Amino acid sequence: MAKTNPGRFFEDYTLGQVIEHAVPRTVSGGERALYHALYPARHALYSSDAFAQASGLPKAPIDDLAAFHVVFGKTVPDVSLNAVANLGYAEGRWLKPVYEGDTLRSTSEVIGLKQNSNGKTGVVYVRTRGMNQSGDVVMEYVRWVMVRKRDIDAPAPEAVVPELSKVIDPADLVIPEGLDFSNYDFTLAGESHRWGDYEIGETIDHVDGVTLEEAEHMMATRLWQNTAKVHFDATFRPDGQRLIYGGHIISLARALSFNGLANAQMIVGLNGGAHANPAFSGLTVKAWSQVLDKAETGAPGVGAIRLRLVATKGGAPFELKGDDGKYNPDVLLDLDYWALMPL
Amino acid sequence: MAKTNPGRFFEDYTLGQVIEHAVPRTVSGGERALYHALYPARHALYSSDAFAQASGLPKAPIDDLAAFHVVFGKTVPDVSLNAVANLGYAEGRWLKPVYEGDTLRSTSEVIGLKQNSNGKTGVVYVRTRGMNQSGDVVMEYVRWVMVRKRDIDAPAPEAVVPELSKVIDPADLVIPEGLDFSNYDFTLAGESHRWGDYEIGETIDHVDGVTLEEAEHMMATRLWQNTAKVHFDATFRPDGQRLIYGGHIISLARALSFNGLANAQMIVGLNGGAHANPAFSGLTVKAWSQVLDKAETGAPGVGAIRLRLVATKGGAPFELKGDDGKYNPDVLLDLDYWALMPL
Amino acid sequence: MAKTNPGRFFEDYTLGQVIEHAVPRTVSGGERALYHALYPARHALYSSDAFAQASGLPKAPIDDLAAFHVVFGKTVPDVSLNAVANLGYAEGRWLKPVYEGDTLRSTSEVIGLKQNSNGKTGVVYVRTRGMNQSGDVVMEYVRWVMVRKRDIDAPAPEAVVPELSKVIDPADLVIPEGLDFSNYDFTLAGESHRWGDYEIGETIDHVDGVTLEEAEHMMATRLWQNTAKVHFDATFRPDGQRLIYGGHIISLARALSFNGLANAQMIVGLNGGAHANPAFSGLTVKAWSQVLDKAETGAPGVGAIRLRLVATKGGAPFELKGDDGKYNPDVLLDLDYWALMPL
Repeated sequence: MAKTNPGRFFEDYTLGQVIEHAVPRTVSGGERALYHALYPARHALYSSDAFAQASGLPKAPIDDLAAFHVVFGKTVPDVSLNAVANLGYAEGRWLKPVYEGDTLRSTSEVIGLKQNSNGKTGVVYVRTRGMNQSGDVVMEYVRWVMVRKRDIDAPAPEAVVPELSKVIDPADLVIPEGLDFSNYDFTLAGESHRWGDYEIGETIDHVDGVTLEEAEHMMATRLWQNTAKVHFDATFRPDGQRLIYGGHIISLARALSFNGLANAQMIVGLNGGAHANPAFSGLTVKAWSQVLDKAETGAPGVGAIRLRLVATKGGAPFELKGDDGKYNPDVLLDLDYWALMPL
Repeated sequence: MAKTNPGRFFEDYTLGQVIEHAVPRTVSGGERALYHALYPARHALYSSDAFAQASGLPKAPIDDLAAFHVVFGKTVPDVSLNAVANLGYAEGRWLKPVYEGDTLRSTSEVIGLKQNSNGKTGVVYVRTRGMNQSGDVVMEYVRWVMVRKRDIDAPAPEAVVPELSKVIDPADLVIPEGLDFSNYDFTLAGESHRWGDYEIGETIDHVDGVTLEEAEHMMATRLWQNTAKVHFDATFRPDGQRLIYGGHIISLARALSFNGLANAQMIVGLNGGAHANPAFSGLTVKAWSQVLDKAETGAPGVGAIRLRLVATKGGAPFELKGDDGKYNPDVLLDLDYWALMPL
Repeated sequence: MAKTNPGRFFEDYTLGQVIEHAVPRTVSGGERALYHALYPARHALYSSDAFAQASGLPKAPIDDLAAFHVVFGKTVPDVSLNAVANLGYAEGRWLKPVYEGDTLRSTSEVIGLKQNSNGKTGVVYVRTRGMNQSGDVVMEYVRWVMVRKRDIDAPAPEAVVPELSKVIDPADLVIPEGLDFSNYDFTLAGESHRWGDYEIGETIDHVDGVTLEEAEHMMATRLWQNTAKVHFDATFRPDGQRLIYGGHIISLARALSFNGLANAQMIVGLNGGAHANPAFSGLTVKAWSQVLDKAETGAPGVGAIRLRLVATKGGAPFELKGDDGKYNPDVLLDLDYWALMPL
């Protein structure tokens, strides 16, 4: 029997199964520096220990999305090695900031299974949790993927599709302990727009663009120990292109959104997301956002803002879908998240 | 009103204005490692804690030019977003080494303004200071840039052109506290040539070359949080090329100069500099130096050496300008700086 | 006289000569993060402080091959700047793990010299040792290279060819102090195959592939302060290609070997190695392994496994040499090493 990991097929998952993912990971200032080298990240809370301390945190955490990528990367060998498509995210919450020296590991619980009518594939729903070295859950999210069957004749499991919140109730968002934006320094943060300055429905064109390079997306994807072959091996696809990890586009778009949303400091909730079209080296990525909702939080000076973040590879901003309800071909990412912003 | 940063235009600057730049930055071993991955940096004082300690410092600082880039990067959104050209540097001094864990921020004071005769642009002179988390100034320099006017009809300010030193007086160079080259280990440093071995007028061909890559200059430029679109967005220029941040060429040339100037350990003064021609991915950069001056310092075993550092993309070394006084088309950089060297 | 390093020529070496190499290097979390960004490294002992601590170490060391590259890189300006070919490795042993904060330097002792019959070149054998800041030897290995003569008429030295072990006796392998795999967590490590599950002669196709990029191999090679021009300067070779540092292929192949050898945690011996064919950007590297031998060690729960690791740029796995005894043109690397694995 081959000793390499063949990945799980649809019939290998059972409802309630908990998969403990391999290769825990200690993060350091190296990951933080690389995050700033790979993305034009400028949110002050993650760039400066002093700024984080002035906001009530012990020091600057690792970027929330870096924590997400580390947790996510561990799931790939067990969840998406034989995936045909990454279908969606829901109920993502950041529960505790991750700091240099923390060691992260992940588990996934199978919360839904539904064979497709073609009998060749099925949809697997997992709730993934990332834990630090103390066993504290630092983040969790639901993801569902379409996975191939190994054996087409394997019987279909009873279909269970979990009921997932379309949006995380703001009351369920977890504000990092001690976070306090009462004395927030808008000058050091880079923009003067506070929570009260954003209106629901408002759209923001983030203006800046970044052209994608092979070396960069591969370095990022490896840094998160994501093992999906299609990101690294140019001989894998018939067209000789390396598919860029969707998370690379998420981080890039989020970093671009600094220009107009510099004060949307921390990501605390992931309501949903779609990788609308594949991304490849050579494309130039731009981003726009729309304010979807706002909410108060109990924390001093801290408001929550719900944002749609869209990454594109061309076209005009603020155009998302056609009359047929399908994403425009220029849209790469449509992400729905909650962030924390000074009041 | 758009929430994105439009940058300042010429008429937005006033004499004496102090701009506090955004996004403070904590540096770590990650920045140090990336500096060594992005440039062929080998100066022992920055590579080895033990070597730095033997030279009287607490440990190896972040490379002087990395500190410069971090300080400089912060100024871009406020000073050069609408710049047509980066015209010059002067009176640059490194005042305190930067160590892992330090948090840097920058301010710029407008010290000169002069509208151009075409009425469309003007020259802005700023003195930029970088401070650490204790408020100590770690470096300062003067830069002047040509900036577009937003409104051509805006009245011209009274022209004030600051008097800038062509060369920093060696007596004004700041030697890091405790620096002592009395027991300097020339073997570990990599070359035997000491301060006394260099003659004024002497030229050195640094021999080695490095071919530029898009991923590398973009990672470097992002690491310093420099936001100028032209470095990242291949759709920004009509020719589809990404202009390489001038500082990338400075660091590359300085690292190449190790071969022949391994003992020019610390940069303490920047007398002037010109980015003579633009640099793009695919070019192969070489470097040569000329000894412009030498001076003694009060510190034990420490001499100062004034060097011209020239980066080229071809051609023969030691050729700088044509009969017309213009830089040769192969010259990328002409930098004039003071370094510290063992006596 | 030029101040740049001309490198040593064959007649510059004498038997017994000890060369102290320049530019000591302090490693940090930055090097560790970069190693994970540059290679798909997933061995848990190097990824997680918690996993390393559960194995009896104080925390996760720098990858063994990263330590090797740092030690090796220092030797290039003194040993291989004028080398025509890197001929072989032998008797490599890792003697002490390297941790963040350690400062490494290297020395090489000339242990053999043999002029080639053409009178133009000769073979130099050196035993290189890497030391940390306390003077402890962290690793040692023998390398032999073919070096050009400066002066063809220089007299040939007496030929001395050292007797080198073809394989390190398992009794001579040094197990890191405290290493204990008694409570090894196979789930967190990523695979269930233990020492007892591998049979001598067994072959493993590691399946995954990585396409090489210029920016990545140059960043890696610079990070190890390897100065060989041919890796960086596209104008150096007539074909305009940059030759990839052989160590980049070693690290890439080792990282790929995780898939099937996830529990071959630590490398403790390098029996031999050949860079069978040159590697260039654009190639897709795959790897396969063969179990050559197994041995017990005194350490609790720890077995030793001798592995052949082969990197290829195409072709079928498990094919190494043709009938003529020469490596197949698709073979890039043939490495023979000892690793430690849980019993």
